[in-house]
Amino acid sequence: MSEVIATYLVHDTSDNLEKKAEGIALGLTVGSWTALPKLEQEQLKKHKGKVISVEQFDVGDRASQYLGKQVKKGIIKIAYPSANFSVDLPAILTTTFGKLSLDGEIKLLDLEFSNELKAAFPGPKFGLNGIRETLGVFDRPLVMSIFKGVIGRDIAYLKEQLREQALGGVNIIKDDEILFENPLTPFETRITEGKKVLEEVYAETGHRALYAVNLTGRTFELKERARRAVELGADLLLFNVFAYGLDVLQSLAEDPEVSIPIMAHPAVSGALTPSEFYGFSNQLLLGKLLRYAGADLVLFPSPYGSVALERDQTLAIAAELTKTDEFVKPSFPVPSAGIHPGLVPLLINDFGKDSVINAGGGVHGHPDGAVGGGKAFNAAVDAVLARKTLVEFAQNSPELKKALDLWGYKEV
Amino acid sequence: MSEVIATYLVHDTSDNLEKKAEGIALGLTVGSWTALPKLEQEQLKKHKGKVISVEQFDVGDRASQYLGKQVKKGIIKIAYPSANFSVDLPAILTTTFGKLSLDGEIKLLDLEFSNELKAAFPGPKFGLNGIRETLGVFDRPLVMSIFKGVIGRDIAYLKEQLREQALGGVNIIKDDEILFENPLTPFETRITEGKKVLEEVYAETGHRALYAVNLTGRTFELKERARRAVELGADLLLFNVFAYGLDVLQSLAEDPEVSIPIMAHPAVSGALTPSEFYGFSNQLLLGKLLRYAGADLVLFPSPYGSVALERDQTLAIAAELTKTDEFVKPSFPVPSAGIHPGLVPLLINDFGKDSVINAGGGVHGHPDGAVGGGKAFNAAVDAVLARKTLVEFAQNSPELKKALDLWGYKEV
Repeated sequence: MSEVIATYLVHDTSDNLEKKAEGIALGLTVGSWTALPKLEQEQLKKHKGKVISVEQFDVGDRASQYLGKQVKKGIIKIAYPSANFSVDLPAILTTTFGKLSLDGEIKLLDLEFSNELKAAFPGPKFGLNGIRETLGVFDRPLVMSIFKGVIGRDIAYLKEQLREQALGGVNIIKDDEILFENPLTPFETRITEGKKVLEEVYAETGHRALYAVNLTGRTFELKERARRAVELGADLLLFNVFAYGLDVLQSLAEDPEVSIPIMAHPAVSGALTPSEFYGFSNQLLLGKLLRYAGADLVLFPSPYGSVALERDQTLAIAAELTKTDEFVKPSFPVPSAGIHPGLVPLLINDFGKDSVINAGGGVHGHPDGAVGGGKAFNAAVDAVLARKTLVEFAQNSPELKKALDLWGYKEV
Repeated sequence: MSEVIATYLVHDTSDNLEKKAEGIALGLTVGSWTALPKLEQEQLKKHKGKVISVEQFDVGDRASQYLGKQVKKGIIKIAYPSANFSVDLPAILTTTFGKLSLDGEIKLLDLEFSNELKAAFPGPKFGLNGIRETLGVFDRPLVMSIFKGVIGRDIAYLKEQLREQALGGVNIIKDDEILFENPLTPFETRITEGKKVLEEVYAETGHRALYAVNLTGRTFELKERARRAVELGADLLLFNVFAYGLDVLQSLAEDPEVSIPIMAHPAVSGALTPSEFYGFSNQLLLGKLLRYAGADLVLFPSPYGSVALERDQTLAIAAELTKTDEFVKPSFPVPSAGIHPGLVPLLINDFGKDSVINAGGGVHGHPDGAVGGGKAFNAAVDAVLARKTLVEFAQNSPELKKALDLWGYKEV
């Protein structure tokens, strides 16, 4: 049967979660059951929600004290027949976590799609391997850097910064996600001028970097803008998906004319995920759903910086993005924030080679500027791949040495 | 200066919130300041974020014990120049609460738009007064009811339920928000067949009710579907805005061809608002932003039911929806869930005449069915307007009497 199975975490005072679960399964589908005549039950059977499992366990007092009531923790799984909804994420979210999101301490941990449903989602158009092929970079993590302090600056300033970053040897350079359409550095100019810079660097050095331009503006104009970006030769789109909606990302990913990869940014997702009691798990929202909806790369807070996620959550996101799935391609995990070259062994240990090492301050703040920063990151990657320590490898890389001196390092 | 001022609630261990506030104001705008040469400061001045105020106060131990660190509560106001963003809600949300939403215990309480910015938002096309005019109902709250148990049912079943509800004298009947496009009761058929039913009831009784049909499907098809609904004679659109995005609602509200009112449903908003530490205030999200984006009516959980909001939060939402604003029309507040006729005095006391009294079970569960339920609600409204007690008034309304006997009542 085609269905979506939702897994909820509830904090509830009741000792009888089965009853609550049954109430949800009926309330969000056929409404009532036992009171219905046999004939109607027969008709409605294929629409009826079904409780798959209910587990309940005691928790420490922390949550109870905070909530001011003695709660137990429960995990509830409910199957919703896909006969009840159209195959789109707004319908699936409204069914599984629409009204229910408002019903006390309840958090949506997971959605499991049956194969019929999965087949309706595009997944990434390029995915991890497609981006590797575009870049011709295999068997190592990519290195990415971020523009810094570009608000209010002109195109010459951006070009210079782009050039420096590319010369450092990073693979991808992304717009600041708070850079919107503006007269100083308009979207189209950023693409065309950015392209020239990257072509120049390629001609000079043989190194090719991709530039992720921030796709912004009104929702109903995004497809047109994305297509225009492609026409102008853009490499990649950065997209603040949670300021729009997952379905908007999906439509961009499905559009054959938007024939470049999309990088999803987690901006605003902190309104949806950090609570223990409410919202979505990071694994579901930043992992599974972004991948299903078609993000080729997914940024999320790394476990190392000041804006950080717990390590196991970041690993769970990365696992969702990369695990084998016969329906959708894997997406590139991009753990971000607080990254400097001294953390590369830890990053590769945690996220493997199939990840993107992304830094802002860790590139621009290098004593030799962004050129030195990029070189230091690539040297750190080389070190790990050569199974050498950073300190050892730094003997042959002055840029890495300076980075280690400045920021320290963690060997694993 | 055109700007948006964001008000944040933070729970932070620091005694020096000024520093944190300054870091946010710079980090989300020009990046750095004191280190910049005078000339650059001059250039960037109009882009620089500004700390408006910082207040910090001790809180009880509850939050600290829960968070496992000694926190204080702070209220920070920061002004973001509109020179930094395009005038659309995704850009404004990404600027004010994009990356920042991920940065520890921080909740967005309010956004204050300067007049230049406000002027760019449509607000409701009809609003509270426009809907009153359409219905010809003034000086009293409207009564609304909700289809119940319609998943898996055919169009004859829906028509019968619609007819019963309309015969009870309610002003608006809304689709179940979990009813999507489906072969048994397709969107277009619901509109055309629903219209016939309501015309029949009007011919029989002189009472005119509006039917709010659920606008669903893929984002980029919504405008087309909404326009088609208008062509077919739909009265009202129900919209699960938080399964899509605020900007999608705004585009629908701005579309001159979508010439009918829009009712926003709070589905999925429980993932965004209930935490004390994270997300958005209800007042901002369900109040101000839905009004700016153009919702003519806004459903939100009432303070009375099992799926409830705190009373002061519901009053704050209603206040945002209805307060005088020279730029946008007021929206109808629709406190929902747990409503029965015995609560009408309380509802009118709390939300005033300019609100919609909305019920599901409180209409359908009446001993005389939905017809009786609607009549009981209208009798309860009549009682309050006539300054009589419900019990007194019920002497002349058998439907109200039965409702009070079944559900009880609260006089105020």
